[in-house]
Parts: sequence; structure tokens; C-alpha cells
Amino acid sequence: MLDLLFVGGTIVTGNKNLNIVLNGMIGVAGGKIQLLTENPKNKKKLPPAKRIIELDREIIMPGLINTHCHAADSLFRGLVENLSLEDWLKEVWKAEKAILTPETTLLGSYLGLAENLLAGVTTVVDMFWYPFETAKASIDLGMRLCTGGIFIDLPGVGNRNHKQYLNEAVDFCSTFKNSDVIFPAVMPHGTYTVKPDHLKDAKKIANEYEAIFSTHAAETNFEQKDINNRYGASVIKHLDNLNILDDRVILAHCVHLDDYEKDLLKEKNSVVAHNPVSNLKLGSGIAPVSDLLELGINVTVGTDGAISGNDLDMWLSMRLAATLPKGALMKPDIVSAKEVISMATLKGAEALGKGRDIGSLEVGKQADMIIISTESIHAVPLFDPITHLVYSTSKSDVKHVFIGGKQCVKDGKIISFNIEDILNEVRNLREPILKSLI
Amino acid sequence: MLDLLFVGGTIVTGNKNLNIVLNGMIGVAGGKIQLLTENPKNKKKLPPAKRIIELDREIIMPGLINTHCHAADSLFRGLVENLSLEDWLKEVWKAEKAILTPETTLLGSYLGLAENLLAGVTTVVDMFWYPFETAKASIDLGMRLCTGGIFIDLPGVGNRNHKQYLNEAVDFCSTFKNSDVIFPAVMPHGTYTVKPDHLKDAKKIANEYEAIFSTHAAETNFEQKDINNRYGASVIKHLDNLNILDDRVILAHCVHLDDYEKDLLKEKNSVVAHNPVSNLKLGSGIAPVSDLLELGINVTVGTDGAISGNDLDMWLSMRLAATLPKGALMKPDIVSAKEVISMATLKGAEALGKGRDIGSLEVGKQADMIIISTESIHAVPLFDPITHLVYSTSKSDVKHVFIGGKQCVKDGKIISFNIEDILNEVRNLREPILKSLI
Repeated sequence: MLDLLFVGGTIVTGNKNLNIVLNGMIGVAGGKIQLLTENPKNKKKLPPAKRIIELDREIIMPGLINTHCHAADSLFRGLVENLSLEDWLKEVWKAEKAILTPETTLLGSYLGLAENLLAGVTTVVDMFWYPFETAKASIDLGMRLCTGGIFIDLPGVGNRNHKQYLNEAVDFCSTFKNSDVIFPAVMPHGTYTVKPDHLKDAKKIANEYEAIFSTHAAETNFEQKDINNRYGASVIKHLDNLNILDDRVILAHCVHLDDYEKDLLKEKNSVVAHNPVSNLKLGSGIAPVSDLLELGINVTVGTDGAISGNDLDMWLSMRLAATLPKGALMKPDIVSAKEVISMATLKGAEALGKGRDIGSLEVGKQADMIIISTESIHAVPLFDPITHLVYSTSKSDVKHVFIGGKQCVKDGKIISFNIEDILNEVRNLREPILKSLI
Repeated sequence: MLDLLFVGGTIVTGNKNLNIVLNGMIGVAGGKIQLLTENPKNKKKLPPAKRIIELDREIIMPGLINTHCHAADSLFRGLVENLSLEDWLKEVWKAEKAILTPETTLLGSYLGLAENLLAGVTTVVDMFWYPFETAKASIDLGMRLCTGGIFIDLPGVGNRNHKQYLNEAVDFCSTFKNSDVIFPAVMPHGTYTVKPDHLKDAKKIANEYEAIFSTHAAETNFEQKDINNRYGASVIKHLDNLNILDDRVILAHCVHLDDYEKDLLKEKNSVVAHNPVSNLKLGSGIAPVSDLLELGINVTVGTDGAISGNDLDMWLSMRLAATLPKGALMKPDIVSAKEVISMATLKGAEALGKGRDIGSLEVGKQADMIIISTESIHAVPLFDPITHLVYSTSKSDVKHVFIGGKQCVKDGKIISFNIEDILNEVRNLREPILKSLI
């Protein structure tokens, strides 16, 4: 007996061939996809299921995988504007240090992860000050999360030292090493904020626990110059010199890369998390996404935090991933919609080492699936589902979200958690946050 | 007695100083704003009104003005992908010629204008093959529209010749010369598709009827080279040589301009309609918006047609107008949110010569106003309304739309017209449209 049976609708499987089933049927049991096929014309041939969800014009696709986020930074959405990354970070850290405790981090994590969830994101890679709080929020919302201990050498939130960060990172990895919803990572902030020895310490833990290593890299020109001055190497070369690069490394941004760095990323099979919304807003630049794709580098998509990009909208990130290179290079035929769908789903899963479990709709995989309504006026007419998903779907079109077969969003509302109370608590934090910058 | 009284909410007036009233009150009678002030604490002091609309966390702002659109091209949304502007146009024109009649143009106009309306656009500048049909759709929806006779020397839809275009242009201008909802224009397609004499003919009609002259200009590098080869002048210089440039000219795109052209635009007070979504998608390039603004040129915002940009979302156009120059030039402090709000409202009205009537919420102006919900998760927290409107508001946040005091959209649904029937008719056109390209 199936737990769930989806009948009808267009299935965008997101598998390697990006197969599409025009009038499909998906059966789920034990949180996993048990069957995926065409909808039989004879209704009597439907397999038995506890719950049947009939679909018509909807699109069913794998949940999106957001490979770079700072969910709890949504507390500071729109607070700091019109500054360069470096000046902006100073203000952001000022507000963060004044406001963030484990409790407010939990609040912000609910806020940021719920925004992801409502937009159809089922797995988030998140970097933030209190990873256990982010993990709690993710579990409560019913989502999957890749996060872990942060590392930073500046006096950060909570004024912890390297040893404390190390302990937290180990603690996090050992707590979640067998989890199928929390994927442990180590999260050094960047090469310009974490010294080489500390980066190596972080990577050592990642290796020990087979965890992801994720950091900001090559986001700005300034950063490249800074690292060159300090270490006589470009950012990616510097990471390679420290023996950090491999296929379990996710590098956020990679806007400014020389050819040698691109070749290194390819050689080491490291992953780039592309964040076009944030890169534009902060004036970081336009990442060479089409070059990276051409080289066969695993490029994935992220939103970054709402403090830089102002919202957490993977659909906008996907649309810009496809259109920004076209505009910047004046080549309308690069970075296809198909490539971008893959970047935001299966490639994200593969980046986490979870390509067998999530990232596409295939028999045996987790039922992480989202149902996209095409009733909105911007979906009429609809010639090709992949084109529609990348260029005209809006986060408001996400109707239902299932994660591991459990429904988290129904008709555009979160049903796995009471988010309205959280929103009111955040609204009450507005005044203290404003005062923190004075 | 007022017809309408809005009590509460944050008023973003959109006036020259971008004044904001935090807890406001707006009274409307005879379609115009009669009072705009702070909400009196004493409820007994509220002026009498037939209908009172109580607002709380909503933002009230002027309706958006979309200064470049091809509404009926929404029939072909997502049909032609991954081609350069020139190759893309060939395919588009093939589909248009096979499908478009006055009847299907009316259908497409409802579709495209309704999408604008739902996104909070109250006035559209539209260029299309059958302007009387677009005008009918606009009037039926209750919107304002600037359009008029198209000119093109290629064998276009309906196979009309220049004389027929001339007659239609004159007919349109004389029909609507006194309208306060349809603003007549002449609409030559571009300098590469309309010969100099015909451009001059069009401008002559515009001058005679004090109508807007709008055309595509300097959209691609290819176009600049083409015009240079043909006429020995850049596109803007060519238009100036024909005595066309003045403050009643709206030039769509202006992506590729030399310094001389920029100075000409400034000197002649001509208007640029910036369409970042389309420019990226078609690989046209990134317009020098910050340069134009610095020179004091009147830059406005458009969506272009859904056949290039895939949807008609002024919020996305606004967000990119603000962020694309930051990213492209790596300067996070250029093109402020305030500038962009003005570009999408008051500057648009001024471009149409209607700055006294529409474009901002001020006493004596038309009550073209939109109510933005801030209940969505991406609006929490909200530190500054202008920042929120440009960087995190989504078209799905548009709750109510009033045009000339008449409510056209209520709770995100069009109430001035039955749009669902139109959507079904368009869905039925899908197969014939697909066949038109074979």
C-alpha cells in the first residue's frame, strides 16, 4: 500500500537526461519514491494508496537545493544598503554582534528556512553562527540542511576562539554523522578571515567525518588582491596550497577567477555555489558561470543571505543564472534552461554527496518533491515546462512541498510549523535591531 | 462626500521628494486624490466617505508605469528561445504573421495588459500591430495606455503598406486625442526596420497631435553597426539627423550608446525606457543606466514583451534596474532604490507628458494607486519601505489596484474584467501557435 499517489500533472524528473512525463503518476511509501510512470488511462489500474493527490496542469519536480545561504541573517533583511562588501560586512557584524544569541539565531533560522521552504527549497546549505540552532529550525520545519561549525578569526558573535569553534564543529559532525536530514559540514568564513592553519584544522574535521567543507571564495576583486598580498597566491590556489580542494568542497561565489583557478576547480572537482542576486546587489561582479559550465565544473545555485540579496528566492537566482551570462557576454545561446534546472536540483544534491538520495524524482530516491501551479497569468500559454520553470515561474507558484514524503507546504502555506508566531516575534525585534547600528 | 477613504498604512507618495507618510490617510472623489495627510488619531475626525478601506501594515504607492511593452506578444511567451535578437525576430515574426489577426491581438492584449495590472501597473506604453485592439483591451480592463499606429517597412502582420500605417496612425491619434485613459502615440519599430522618410512621417503625425513618438533604439551592437553602415551615423545621431529627438520621444533599450549619443539624449530631453529583463535574456547587453542617470537623462522602466522576457514583471525590472549596474560596474552605491521608484512611477508619467495627472500620490492627481501587502515572509522584518519595494517586493504582494479611483484588482484578483475566459482561450491557441513555427 502506497502512502501517497500523485496522479496527473507534468513530471519534470530532473534526472540526468531531464526526462519529462507529460501525464504522470508517482507513488510514495516510506518517504521514498516507489513508482514513477505514465498515468494509466484506466483508473482501475491505479495502485492502492492511503492518499491520492490528483493533479492536472501542475508541474511536479524535485525540491530545489539552495547551496549557499545564511538563513538567520534574514533578521537583518534590508538593514544595510549601498555599501561595498567590506564596509557592508562591518555594519552587518555590528548588528549581528549586538542582536544574535542562540535564541535570536533560532528565530532567524525559522524565518530564513521557512522562506526557502515556501519557495520550494527542500535542502539548504547554510553557514551561520550557531549551527545547532539552525539545525533545530530545519528539523522543526521538516527540511534537509547541510551546515556545521563556523570558523572565523575576527572577534565574532559570542566572542568564541578557535578552540571553541573546533569543539563545536566536531560536536556538530558527531551529532549528525548518521542523520538523513542534517548533513554535517565545516564552515570557515573565508580565506581573508580565517588563517591557513585554522582552515586546515577545519578541513581535517571535514575529512574525519566525511563532511562538506564550505567557504566564501573569490567573491570580490578586493579579496583576490588581499589574499595575493598576504599569501602570494590567488584565493583558489591558496586553498589548493593548503590541500583543501576536493569534491566535498563547496565554494560560494567564485566571481573573480583566473584561468589557473578555473582549471584547479575542474581538476579537483570542487563545487561552485553561484549567487547572482547577492553578487549584483553587493556590486561584487558577474560570475563566469558559462565558462565554468563549459569546463565541466559542478556549478550549483544559491540565494546567499537576505541581508545581501534582500530575499531568499531560488527562482530569481535560477533565472539570473540563466540570463546574466547571456546579457553580460551578449550571447543569448549560452547557459540553457535545462542546465539551470540541473544546477538547482541534481547538481546541488551531488555537491552534497547525496546524488543517490535526493535531487531528482527517481524510483528509490527520497520523495522531496514540489508541485508548481501553472494557473497564474504568467504561466499562460505554456509551451515548454523547463523554459517556464526557469524564465517565468515565481516563488508564489509553489503550491505544495513534500520532503521525504511528508507534506510541509499546502496551498502555499507552511503546515509543518506555526510560522506566523515567528513572524510576529521578528517584527518585535525591529526596534532593537535598528538601535544596534547607532 | 468622498467616494473612497484609505485609513492607515504607509504612504509612499512618489512625489519629487519621495515623501513618506507612516500612518496615512487618502481621500478620493471624482477619481482624483482630494486629501493626503496623516491618519488623525481621533476617529471622529475622519471625513465622511462612501467607502472606507482600513489599512495597517500595507504600503500605498502610485501605480507603476511600464514604458515599454508588447502586451499581445504574451501569446508567444516562451515559444522562441536561445537565439540572438536578429534570428529571434525572424522566428517571432513568423509566428506573429501566422497567428495574429485583430481578434487574436485583442486576446493577447487582454492577456498581457492583465498581467501588468495584476503586478500593479496602471499605465502601459505598448507597441503592437493593431493598436485599436490593444486600446479596447486596456479600456475594458480599466487601465491607462499609451499606444498608436505602428510603422514597419518589412512585410508585417496584415501585410499593410506605409500609407495604411499612416492612415491608422492618424486615425488613432484623432480618435483618442482628448482621452484621459488612452494617450496617443506613433510607434515606428526601429531605425533598422523603418526608412528615414517614414520615420519623419511618423514624427510629423506625433507633432501634429502632440503625441508620443516611441521606437526601439540602440538595443544591440549589431543594430549600431547596421545603422552606421547604412547612414554613417550612430542610431541616436541618425534619429537626431532626422529631427526626431525631443522630450516627447521614448527610446526603448539604449543599451549601446557612445558618449555623443548620451549627450544628445540629454540635450534633447528624450526619454530612455530601460528593459533589463529582456536585455539579459536576449543577450543584448547591459544598459549604462547609471551613466544616463548621472547625466540627468529621464530613464524609465519597462518590461518589454513576454516573448523576450517571458513574463511582464515590473518588480523584477525595477530590482534589476537597481542591481544590474551595481554588479556590472562593481559599484554597490550606484542607482539607489529611491531613484528606481521614481523611474517606475513619476518619471514614467513625465515621459508621457502626464506628470501633472499621474505618477505620484498628490492632491489633485488621478487616484492611480496600488496597495502592497507586507504579510509575506519576504517582507519580514521591514526596515525601510523604499528598500523593501525595490529589493524584496514581489508581484504577488500587489493586493489592490485602483485606477482613477476605480478598483480593478481586489485581493490579487482582477475584478474589472473576466480574465479566466481569456486564459482558457489562449490555452486553446497553444497548438496552432506551435504549428506556426513548423
